[in-house]
Amino acid sequence: MKIAIAGSGALGSGFGFKLFQAGNEVTLIDTWPDHVEAINTNGLEVDFNGEKGTEKIPAFFPQDVKDTFDVVFVFTKSMQLANMLEAIQHTLTEDTKIICLLNGLGHKQTLAKYIPVKNIFMGTTVWTAGIDAPGKVHFMGQGPVELQNIDPNEKAAAEELVEMMAKAGLNGQYSDNVVFSTWRKACVNGTLNVLCSILDCDIEELSKTETCRNMMTSIITEFSLGAKVEGVTLDVTETVDYLMDLCGKVGPHYPSMHQDLIQNHRPTEVDYLNGAVAKMGKEHGFDAPTCQIITDLIHAKEDLLGIKR
Amino acid sequence: MKIAIAGSGALGSGFGFKLFQAGNEVTLIDTWPDHVEAINTNGLEVDFNGEKGTEKIPAFFPQDVKDTFDVVFVFTKSMQLANMLEAIQHTLTEDTKIICLLNGLGHKQTLAKYIPVKNIFMGTTVWTAGIDAPGKVHFMGQGPVELQNIDPNEKAAAEELVEMMAKAGLNGQYSDNVVFSTWRKACVNGTLNVLCSILDCDIEELSKTETCRNMMTSIITEFSLGAKVEGVTLDVTETVDYLMDLCGKVGPHYPSMHQDLIQNHRPTEVDYLNGAVAKMGKEHGFDAPTCQIITDLIHAKEDLLGIKR
Repeated sequence: MKIAIAGSGALGSGFGFKLFQAGNEVTLIDTWPDHVEAINTNGLEVDFNGEKGTEKIPAFFPQDVKDTFDVVFVFTKSMQLANMLEAIQHTLTEDTKIICLLNGLGHKQTLAKYIPVKNIFMGTTVWTAGIDAPGKVHFMGQGPVELQNIDPNEKAAAEELVEMMAKAGLNGQYSDNVVFSTWRKACVNGTLNVLCSILDCDIEELSKTETCRNMMTSIITEFSLGAKVEGVTLDVTETVDYLMDLCGKVGPHYPSMHQDLIQNHRPTEVDYLNGAVAKMGKEHGFDAPTCQIITDLIHAKEDLLGIKR
Repeated sequence: MKIAIAGSGALGSGFGFKLFQAGNEVTLIDTWPDHVEAINTNGLEVDFNGEKGTEKIPAFFPQDVKDTFDVVFVFTKSMQLANMLEAIQHTLTEDTKIICLLNGLGHKQTLAKYIPVKNIFMGTTVWTAGIDAPGKVHFMGQGPVELQNIDPNEKAAAEELVEMMAKAGLNGQYSDNVVFSTWRKACVNGTLNVLCSILDCDIEELSKTETCRNMMTSIITEFSLGAKVEGVTLDVTETVDYLMDLCGKVGPHYPSMHQDLIQNHRPTEVDYLNGAVAKMGKEHGFDAPTCQIITDLIHAKEDLLGIKR
């Protein structure tokens, strides 16, 4: 298949590498000049679960891509998704399928502005990756990459894409539960990430505060209203029990948003977590004031730290 | 008149000193052993607007007071009010009037658990004071000490108490607007104090964040619902305009809650600001989720800093 990776950072490069090795025609797309140049000059070097390899895969800035594609994986940061879709519009045909494995909420709505719903395939992944240098990434994982069609008539197409990922060693699996999984992950990030960032504490410390469960309940109650709009039932008490239990298992670690915001002064993805629920509330007529003030507090902290959004 | 000062910290000592000098029979009540002992041994030394004086005024622990009183001023910290009232119950008759000039919300409800509403007189003061050592305080002010009866039939009694304060040089003034003034002050503390404490910033920095006005609007909208229960109209837009304007005037200063919580690791009075509005919401059937999560975040921060409540 002709596949583009729109956003070839760590995870995108990893997926592109495996899909290329499985015999697909892969194009890497990214906006980081050093990375694009390094890949075109020396090839893409990937450490996959400890085993190193290099492949000559073409890399382009979005505006320089000439081809159109059968499948596009989007692997941008949440806040860059719309810009990327805008920039690669000329590479999409009416049949190009887009696979979105991004964390967070609201991506389906963004995708639907650029392509027909029948071409949208949402998924989740627990694989992880990091960039070691321009053109060099490490990529780890073995758990399932779950995928689901959004249009009920497109299950066969989803299964074909799953098969393509399975053949590339990416452990693709069909799921009829992706929307639930996405909300479940968002519940984790929309509580642990934001609360540890606002309070400047680790997950264990958060879980030991007297008001932790109450704060989680306030947030998850609003998330459950957003999930309901998408046909997903989130049991508030069960979810909060799960989160409190998770805190105990994770222990004294800082979540990724704390690393981004407090430690590295990078913009956060709060607009795709609590901010997305607050926005859904306005559009679908439910109240989400807790998510709104949480989002406002995180943005205020970004401003105080001089972080550009 | 026979007057007790229940909570003879800085401000209470100042009031007691002036009332004593005006010829009233004053008893100081406090729970701090060093302070009570110093006053009984050396007298109460007060620097009033730069002029020093010492008066032999009897001081007691609450449980050791034998008398009953015509008037009791409560000058505890907000969170100690209920305990103090509990401890001095034996000093109250069915005619003892209580004057409460404390900042914050919900004190009237606390008082009403211990004395009839006809005996409750609420007020506001802009006078300030500090403790220099056990038995030694400074006390500053000249602005009005406003007072109002809660029971509509008790206006004459309020005017008598005002006269007593005026005679003591405390600039007592009758006001039919005390409930509004109390809410107005609470709006300042329920936004500037809590937001600067959560975000660890000064008032000027807060006012320059992009989401400042939005956060204030979310909070004041809920405060206006609480005020409505008490018959007070708070115009949300006008109040937020006033607060934003106030931020500009106050400039790069940290509010008192930031000093308490972040700088000195002392418990905050959030339960008598946003927490009181959240509680009113539960009792009177309006939603106040923003005030609830703000209160929970402040309490979580107290826990993280090891502050006992």
